[in-house]
Amino acid sequence: MQIGMIGLGRMGANMVRRLQRAGHQCVVFDRSSEAVQALAKEGMTPAASVQEFVNKLSAPRAIWLMLPAAVVDASIAELTPLLSADDIIIDGGNSYYKDDIVRAKSLSAQSIHYADVGVSGGTWGLERGYCLMIGAQQHTVARLQPIFAALAPGVGTTPRTEGRSGQPSTAEIGYLHCGPEGAGHFVKMVHNGIEYGMMAAFAEGFNLLRHANVGNMSHGVDAETTPLREPEAFRYDIDVAEVAELWRRGSVVSSWLLDLTAHALQADPNLEGFGGKVSDSGEGRWTSIAAIESGTPAPVLTAALFDRFNSRGEADYGNKLLSALRYEFGGHHEKR
Amino acid sequence: MQIGMIGLGRMGANMVRRLQRAGHQCVVFDRSSEAVQALAKEGMTPAASVQEFVNKLSAPRAIWLMLPAAVVDASIAELTPLLSADDIIIDGGNSYYKDDIVRAKSLSAQSIHYADVGVSGGTWGLERGYCLMIGAQQHTVARLQPIFAALAPGVGTTPRTEGRSGQPSTAEIGYLHCGPEGAGHFVKMVHNGIEYGMMAAFAEGFNLLRHANVGNMSHGVDAETTPLREPEAFRYDIDVAEVAELWRRGSVVSSWLLDLTAHALQADPNLEGFGGKVSDSGEGRWTSIAAIESGTPAPVLTAALFDRFNSRGEADYGNKLLSALRYEFGGHHEKR
Amino acid sequence: MQIGMIGLGRMGANMVRRLQRAGHQCVVFDRSSEAVQALAKEGMTPAASVQEFVNKLSAPRAIWLMLPAAVVDASIAELTPLLSADDIIIDGGNSYYKDDIVRAKSLSAQSIHYADVGVSGGTWGLERGYCLMIGAQQHTVARLQPIFAALAPGVGTTPRTEGRSGQPSTAEIGYLHCGPEGAGHFVKMVHNGIEYGMMAAFAEGFNLLRHANVGNMSHGVDAETTPLREPEAFRYDIDVAEVAELWRRGSVVSSWLLDLTAHALQADPNLEGFGGKVSDSGEGRWTSIAAIESGTPAPVLTAALFDRFNSRGEADYGNKLLSALRYEFGGHHEKR
Amino acid sequence: MQIGMIGLGRMGANMVRRLQRAGHQCVVFDRSSEAVQALAKEGMTPAASVQEFVNKLSAPRAIWLMLPAAVVDASIAELTPLLSADDIIIDGGNSYYKDDIVRAKSLSAQSIHYADVGVSGGTWGLERGYCLMIGAQQHTVARLQPIFAALAPGVGTTPRTEGRSGQPSTAEIGYLHCGPEGAGHFVKMVHNGIEYGMMAAFAEGFNLLRHANVGNMSHGVDAETTPLREPEAFRYDIDVAEVAELWRRGSVVSSWLLDLTAHALQADPNLEGFGGKVSDSGEGRWTSIAAIESGTPAPVLTAALFDRFNSRGEADYGNKLLSALRYEFGGHHEKR
Repeated sequence: MQIGMIGLGRMGANMVRRLQRAGHQCVVFDRSSEAVQALAKEGMTPAASVQEFVNKLSAPRAIWLMLPAAVVDASIAELTPLLSADDIIIDGGNSYYKDDIVRAKSLSAQSIHYADVGVSGGTWGLERGYCLMIGAQQHTVARLQPIFAALAPGVGTTPRTEGRSGQPSTAEIGYLHCGPEGAGHFVKMVHNGIEYGMMAAFAEGFNLLRHANVGNMSHGVDAETTPLREPEAFRYDIDVAEVAELWRRGSVVSSWLLDLTAHALQADPNLEGFGGKVSDSGEGRWTSIAAIESGTPAPVLTAALFDRFNSRGEADYGNKLLSALRYEFGGHHEKR
Repeated sequence: MQIGMIGLGRMGANMVRRLQRAGHQCVVFDRSSEAVQALAKEGMTPAASVQEFVNKLSAPRAIWLMLPAAVVDASIAELTPLLSADDIIIDGGNSYYKDDIVRAKSLSAQSIHYADVGVSGGTWGLERGYCLMIGAQQHTVARLQPIFAALAPGVGTTPRTEGRSGQPSTAEIGYLHCGPEGAGHFVKMVHNGIEYGMMAAFAEGFNLLRHANVGNMSHGVDAETTPLREPEAFRYDIDVAEVAELWRRGSVVSSWLLDLTAHALQADPNLEGFGGKVSDSGEGRWTSIAAIESGTPAPVLTAALFDRFNSRGEADYGNKLLSALRYEFGGHHEKR
Repeated sequence: MQIGMIGLGRMGANMVRRLQRAGHQCVVFDRSSEAVQALAKEGMTPAASVQEFVNKLSAPRAIWLMLPAAVVDASIAELTPLLSADDIIIDGGNSYYKDDIVRAKSLSAQSIHYADVGVSGGTWGLERGYCLMIGAQQHTVARLQPIFAALAPGVGTTPRTEGRSGQPSTAEIGYLHCGPEGAGHFVKMVHNGIEYGMMAAFAEGFNLLRHANVGNMSHGVDAETTPLREPEAFRYDIDVAEVAELWRRGSVVSSWLLDLTAHALQADPNLEGFGGKVSDSGEGRWTSIAAIESGTPAPVLTAALFDRFNSRGEADYGNKLLSALRYEFGGHHEKR
Repeated sequence: MQIGMIGLGRMGANMVRRLQRAGHQCVVFDRSSEAVQALAKEGMTPAASVQEFVNKLSAPRAIWLMLPAAVVDASIAELTPLLSADDIIIDGGNSYYKDDIVRAKSLSAQSIHYADVGVSGGTWGLERGYCLMIGAQQHTVARLQPIFAALAPGVGTTPRTEGRSGQPSTAEIGYLHCGPEGAGHFVKMVHNGIEYGMMAAFAEGFNLLRHANVGNMSHGVDAETTPLREPEAFRYDIDVAEVAELWRRGSVVSSWLLDLTAHALQADPNLEGFGGKVSDSGEGRWTSIAAIESGTPAPVLTAALFDRFNSRGEADYGNKLLSALRYEFGGHHEKR
């Protein structure tokens, strides 16, 4: 079928390529004409403006936005006056699901349909396929089904879950209609929240493996340093790259994140190319906020989020206050 | 080669089977003569007593203990008078790595060698192979190499990590000499700590998905209930079994634990067969203790551990105190 | 000066009493005519309707709302058509500070001023005075200064902070202009967030003291129970009521919350009158949300919040999933 | 009565002074002869060696050690050959309570009694008195009662807890026999654990108040920075020193730690004299370890502990791994 794509960055461009390979006709637009030209050379239909983009699509249209969350609303505002009833706008970026609810309501007044699609797959998706979490009305999902099927990984080599039989469900192919508008980004949000927790689990574990030799280090002997009670229990120099490799085989923590850990540590076990200031994106924050708003405990996911803030120095003032209090009540001078 | 196995439970019996398949000669002993007889029927050499077990092994012996951590020391105490210099005792159970350090030192006085082997694989290991984390002196590892190779999963179908070349390392085959005595259980301990964190990440995420419909529930309207500010944002009935299935394909959280989640939820998305009192084993505790002792932050892994305690009612008295304090300062009556 | 009070519950009624004692003239209204009559008998000017209430106040008016957060907007909507330019509406309840920003902006279009006042003091405020955190424009604070001074505790017996000299600041008297509209509830919100953290610290500490005798308990000996390694280290029967009393004198944790703990434990060290389902109110949630939104780590305050959710059973589904996973990978059966 | 004190540092010297003021005869020793001479000038009986110290005390002796935890065992080893049956050794330092259990058992073989006393009071104790948590046999406590009463704050000005009547308990005077040997340090350990949690609550809260103006800051607009959704909600410049002062009056968080916070912020609201590398001492660690060993949830206290480790850079390697993983799966480049 025909589909329009606005936003031809890392994600959008590869998704168009995957759609084209599956035989779909793709009209493409981006603020960067270079990005448009690059895909034109690969056979996609280029558009030089939003107006031209809309014109090149036959109604009822399906328009996929693959844009930074901050500019989605502006893009929709620019598009809508040009659209017709029954057109579909799909936001495949990382929007806050509450924004989807507002947008869907507003667009429905003009009989424009809305779908929010959480997309997982990153830079690997062109080859592996994209895992799609979809929020929309049922009829919208039905119309877009060929697109979703093309983007999704397919049944592939993943072994079937024991107990399942018959035709594979769409989830087994790699896309899922999660519920009405917002549901796709809600599920994607939680996915990323889980990702934060899993990443933190590996980070803490490998960090502890690196600390397994602290008994060999000399420590200050002063009132401000807690001595290691049993230095003989911390004299291991663990080869973390080999451990990551090992755990890829037959262990309970086998996972794609572990595969990536093994790759990163194989290249540089000391990770010297990194400074340790860890970014976070909206989804991690929204997961914790959704947990708080709905009264759901999420201590592990939220601790993982706060540790990212902490890595960027955002706890500094609080830490200074702790040192100040230790000085106040105990005359403790801070270590330098 | 010849190997003796003491402890023929779920793990030990299957490990012996895997060793036999690889051509090793296995002498087996267990307090349960039934367990011994069962393996005798499969061709293993049975022993009716520890003495007979030792006699049937040719020196220098290799004796693998696959026992509950609580009885390992007693078993070693019973064995050692019967052993000769250069025999090896291997503890493949879930011992605390500090115990390994003590045992190795004590056995070395009699020229008996000690190896601690953390084994991951659970009930799946017979077919998938066991991931082995080994602490021992180099010469001990060298002698046991055929055993480790037979138990390990082998290179198998796991794709090779990009950047690696040449002969596979032992980690790529599925076993790793992590360091001197204790190092194997140390690495296994951290492995389980990571497992706790990953499991908690999934548990919190799926729990949040289940709470996505709280806007549809009626809530008490009283001073003790925080009203949901935006009920319209929590009106999703998410099919968690399909979400788990979906994420197995192309998502960042793909993992063996997710495969198991998909299986468990496919069988019963409401998990009604479970009460939610979650056990923990030593390794999870020791990971957090090792983190504290070595001054390594592990907030995520430790929160996961404490939540297990909490699930078993161990926070109750503290919670009562919170309610009591709310009554003290605000006259708040606890909800029933 | 003259002041109107709407909302004569536990807080509002006592605040009016304290204002009257200081010589202020109080016009009072509440949906419950009983509450109005009770204060009328104590000499306050009663109003039978909102209209009468407004009429009995001379312009420019000062109207203090002491209402549940959920009804404040409705009350303001009812009031505003009856008010004149330069009247002041004060929200002394537990509103979300973001609502204050919206209200202030909306009211300013009618030249009505707005103040948000976070009030701490609970049932003790009539005698101890109320600690007031104020968000408003400077001129609004100036007009209300006599009211704030009357409600506040005053310099009282609190020893002056070393290094301060001259006239006491208003903070030393017990009220503070924290910033423009919303700032009062923002500071109150953080106050309550800190309160959650402190309460959790006491709850966890006293719970641990109660667990100091677990070495005397018999524990199950099965694969699902981690044995206590050193039962001899947990054989203390601590008298928690006496410990709370002790710490009130000269210890670092001396605090009003500890005084309340001592009182609660003196009455019943087993806290049998409480079930341990701990409520939370908006402020605790908003503190954590503000932390997340502003990128500020708040792991301790947020863990305290999540533990309240947990106490009400909101982690149950997640816990069931953990048990299900343990069964999946290890064949572990849940303990009953 | 007569008492010997070994260890004349900040704590020991002031405790001796307080004992002397109460009429007790104090024999003093320290490795530093200057410290001994200083107290000799104040009228204490000096000793130039451990032997002389023991000789100057009449049997049965009471010897109080006020030493760094790391040297207590050596000091006891030096003392014991010189002591007689029925002498008492008191460890008033910050020992691990498990060490007390071992020492008491070992000393009892020579009929020497042991008491462990957790002492809170810091540099303020000389004037305020010391809060004493005592672990010992009943008869030992009885003999030392005059010493404990002299060191304790006394009933003082702390208002009596409602519901108590009759003679004040010793807890009301400021000392408590908590249980057999180890119980004193156990209770002191938990006290310090609670202190960590309370301090963290204040640190996080004041840090959040300082972040209340992040809406006024310019933020990077790039894929690695989560934009502030509502900058207008974070435009407050809060005067944290005045807030701390305010909360000292009538608020729920009133506490000695808040008094100290007010003092520290009054001197320098930016806390520029501190770097934010926060030390921790044994008690905080042991509290969390005791919680883990006894299966007691302590997520708040432990998060507070881990944040101290984090403040000293101990999470760095884990953070680098997080950045590395973000690069692996998303091509995200770390912010500098």
